[in-house]
Amino acid sequence: MRMIKFCKVISLLVLIQSCVSSKEMVKTSPDDSIENSMVLALEWQEQHPIYSLDPTDWTNGAYYTGVVKAHQATNNQVFLAALKNMGHKNEWKTCFRYYHADDIAISYSYLYINKLRKHLVDLKPTDNFISDHLYKDHEWKQGSDEGDKKILWWWCDALFMAPPVLVEYANLKNDRIYLDSMHQYYMQTYQLLYDKKEHLFARDLRFKWTGKDTDLKEKNGKKIFWSRGNGWVIAGLALIIEGMPVGYEHRPFYVNLFQEMASKIKETQPKDGLWRTSLLSPESFNHGEVSGSGFFTFALAWGVNNGLLDKETYLPTINKAWKALRSCQQENGKIGWVQNIGASPEPASKDSWQNFGTGAYLLAGSEVLKLK
Amino acid sequence: MRMIKFCKVISLLVLIQSCVSSKEMVKTSPDDSIENSMVLALEWQEQHPIYSLDPTDWTNGAYYTGVVKAHQATNNQVFLAALKNMGHKNEWKTCFRYYHADDIAISYSYLYINKLRKHLVDLKPTDNFISDHLYKDHEWKQGSDEGDKKILWWWCDALFMAPPVLVEYANLKNDRIYLDSMHQYYMQTYQLLYDKKEHLFARDLRFKWTGKDTDLKEKNGKKIFWSRGNGWVIAGLALIIEGMPVGYEHRPFYVNLFQEMASKIKETQPKDGLWRTSLLSPESFNHGEVSGSGFFTFALAWGVNNGLLDKETYLPTINKAWKALRSCQQENGKIGWVQNIGASPEPASKDSWQNFGTGAYLLAGSEVLKLK
Amino acid sequence: MRMIKFCKVISLLVLIQSCVSSKEMVKTSPDDSIENSMVLALEWQEQHPIYSLDPTDWTNGAYYTGVVKAHQATNNQVFLAALKNMGHKNEWKTCFRYYHADDIAISYSYLYINKLRKHLVDLKPTDNFISDHLYKDHEWKQGSDEGDKKILWWWCDALFMAPPVLVEYANLKNDRIYLDSMHQYYMQTYQLLYDKKEHLFARDLRFKWTGKDTDLKEKNGKKIFWSRGNGWVIAGLALIIEGMPVGYEHRPFYVNLFQEMASKIKETQPKDGLWRTSLLSPESFNHGEVSGSGFFTFALAWGVNNGLLDKETYLPTINKAWKALRSCQQENGKIGWVQNIGASPEPASKDSWQNFGTGAYLLAGSEVLKLK
Repeated sequence: MRMIKFCKVISLLVLIQSCVSSKEMVKTSPDDSIENSMVLALEWQEQHPIYSLDPTDWTNGAYYTGVVKAHQATNNQVFLAALKNMGHKNEWKTCFRYYHADDIAISYSYLYINKLRKHLVDLKPTDNFISDHLYKDHEWKQGSDEGDKKILWWWCDALFMAPPVLVEYANLKNDRIYLDSMHQYYMQTYQLLYDKKEHLFARDLRFKWTGKDTDLKEKNGKKIFWSRGNGWVIAGLALIIEGMPVGYEHRPFYVNLFQEMASKIKETQPKDGLWRTSLLSPESFNHGEVSGSGFFTFALAWGVNNGLLDKETYLPTINKAWKALRSCQQENGKIGWVQNIGASPEPASKDSWQNFGTGAYLLAGSEVLKLK
Repeated sequence: MRMIKFCKVISLLVLIQSCVSSKEMVKTSPDDSIENSMVLALEWQEQHPIYSLDPTDWTNGAYYTGVVKAHQATNNQVFLAALKNMGHKNEWKTCFRYYHADDIAISYSYLYINKLRKHLVDLKPTDNFISDHLYKDHEWKQGSDEGDKKILWWWCDALFMAPPVLVEYANLKNDRIYLDSMHQYYMQTYQLLYDKKEHLFARDLRFKWTGKDTDLKEKNGKKIFWSRGNGWVIAGLALIIEGMPVGYEHRPFYVNLFQEMASKIKETQPKDGLWRTSLLSPESFNHGEVSGSGFFTFALAWGVNNGLLDKETYLPTINKAWKALRSCQQENGKIGWVQNIGASPEPASKDSWQNFGTGAYLLAGSEVLKLK
Repeated sequence: MRMIKFCKVISLLVLIQSCVSSKEMVKTSPDDSIENSMVLALEWQEQHPIYSLDPTDWTNGAYYTGVVKAHQATNNQVFLAALKNMGHKNEWKTCFRYYHADDIAISYSYLYINKLRKHLVDLKPTDNFISDHLYKDHEWKQGSDEGDKKILWWWCDALFMAPPVLVEYANLKNDRIYLDSMHQYYMQTYQLLYDKKEHLFARDLRFKWTGKDTDLKEKNGKKIFWSRGNGWVIAGLALIIEGMPVGYEHRPFYVNLFQEMASKIKETQPKDGLWRTSLLSPESFNHGEVSGSGFFTFALAWGVNNGLLDKETYLPTINKAWKALRSCQQENGKIGWVQNIGASPEPASKDSWQNFGTGAYLLAGSEVLKLK
């Protein structure tokens, strides 16, 4: 190339070439909008359905919660169509363990569709589940030998799975009894797992320090706080606060908790924007992970958009995180770098994916969209 | 390139470049055939399932009628596989309102599959629906206070939804009672909604002029004739005439109506080939719309292919329309510029889509294919 | 650009252009790994579901057997997710003809998932089918006027459909009665259809020579041995031997049969690597076919990987075949050149596809992977 000397022909060639290129550009240039990225993520995920126990399980529950928020933010019918298809295929059922918070997460989507289209959604299974979950007897409510399982929501993920559904259900029924029940159980979990010094949640009692030598800790001596686990909590908080009546007496508790956690999460963000799976020991698995980071990005952006977090303070964090999340999306729409199903920090990889990871991505996008 | 004189290096470079390019061309050059465009449209639509009331509803009814015609025209098993999958997933059910023409449209596909594969399709739901639709008592048949709703098919879309199914059903049962019933109800709708001066159908009684000041009209003072509404009618006519025994006594009525409408539709075609959503007021929403245009293109091409319309007269109209329809297909196969679900002229957009829009595209392609 | 006279600018342009290109290269360069090719094949097939009788039929049975092996070989969750979705959608049912080997093929997948995830799979339908298939009275077991149909597995395809399932079922139940029953029926088919001189199976009695003038033969005077038919047998043998306890007394029979057939199959490989649909009359339809060739490639590679076939002898055959199979995969993942559903040699085409063809491709890939 250094040897090029004459050029008319060349410039002609270049011209032709650039015409061709620009035409191709028009045809193939990707639509770089956030919305388009979200559509691509949905399309890939819809083409790769996956579940753990059943298509009504928490993995789809979390994924379709992302789809709900994507639809709310964009009004793009591709999201609503996916929601309705899922509901129809699932016959509007919840998953089957009435005592398990995971198994009602899917109803967040049903309740949303029901708001848009009357007489389409069969809410009976949701009614039954919530009634049983809150008010039917079960060993957990009596206490059991497994110390950490004597309360209904004994692991922090549960705070994403059930409470936002109960808030929406209270709105539907216009009955604060569901809010009060939610709050009662939330407080139990909060007391059990929230670390008031670190402002993060232990995933479950295994990770709570008791002062004994047997306390689990990272190699660096710090406590083990799981990124996704805390992602569940703070994303759930955003959903709860958003749905809760402004005047509800316990709302300040949730707002305060949200702000406390947000501050800590901001603080733990690695330079490249994506949180590691072990928040206080980023070196354990030193790469970004998308599900936790997606939930954090959603929560922080939601906080800014709703006046609960200071825009100037949080915007750099959010922008860095979103940019990094985008780079985890492959050309075909797939969202990689998602830690597999688990209950503590584990590594992810470029190609590891789960539907709830896509859900976290959609949640993040749905609020980052509104920042512009 | 003839003028290149110096530049061995350059020509070498160019050569390398063009080799790469031409190899890429081979790999990525699209198959520009009509059939391939139809396959891409189907693939995108299958990946984006959507319904209004239920997957057995009229939106899928119209879409899969397009898939039937695509299969008939191409014998490409990709279309038949999609039909069978739909039927299996729907358990060969109709939609659930026996008195509503929309809810039997899906049976056009079931009856088609049944012709190809004996003992596969469960025709019971179709039997029951047709029996109830035609012969069970219902308020509409008694007349009601809502003037326009005292007949079974009180809106023009219905003439696509039910009559072609009844014609096929008459053939299956070899019983002209279904033809006669169809004709009886068709005539009621014809009398109610056909404008004998304009040779177009009012969508429903709201749009029929009575000579009062309250008559609905466009800004330009003309009557409101909805593109898709008339698309339903004339595409339905093609399906009816095609299926009807040649010697059926009322066939000439349908042929005549088809020819009258075809002439008017040709006349209203805008220069760029695609009809606007308000046929007599193209300036209301001045862009082409795909569902109406697709139905028109199908009907006109079918008329030419079956000797009911003069080829020389109609070919320019059809070619212009098809070329324009093609330009509404996005690279991923999606058919855009489809007016949303509605009941009167409304705008569309580059990205607005519906399954029945894809159906209209497939119908058009299936007949344009045969013109070559 | 018209004014460019010197070349610094141009070389800069060219440089920019090549940067762009190389960036695009990075983005779009395909992942040429075997695993990626298998994932693409699965993705295309999942987006083009197809069945003959029912989604539980042998076509899906054979396809998902390929998906099982793909998952075993790669541990890529995309394969397991597809299996679980299929099982859930099929409600873990077999197809419905208890006396028909085809209708239990799908249970190979159910039994595999059941090994990985306890309490997920409902094995009742499989239990019932196997019990009826083996031990319930039926005309075939009594003999019938149709000479070839007086035994349970009267056509060679059956040796892929049922025996591998019975072997896995024997393992699950830890009960050799299922092995013994399998062996009993296998021997009947072997006696009926195996040509001990040619070391190939007649598809069914129609193709077995009796010495009469009416014996079916190819134009070249040779016997008709169907590629896919023998593919079913030898791929089935690999699955049987793999699953069968090492000490099972009849194992040597299967090993010997496998080796005999492998040798003959190697011998009949055309130069371009892909077998023709009529093994001894390649000139009948002189192009490669993927389903038979895929099953052969799977079986031969499995034999090498498991020490039953000599690596040096068979590797060239396998490599040539795999390379040619790869060339039948289209850019979008689709596997072409698959003979349609049939029962004797027929032609295929570049675009002809079936789910079991994709299954054969996945089987082949799953063993070729391990050769490296």
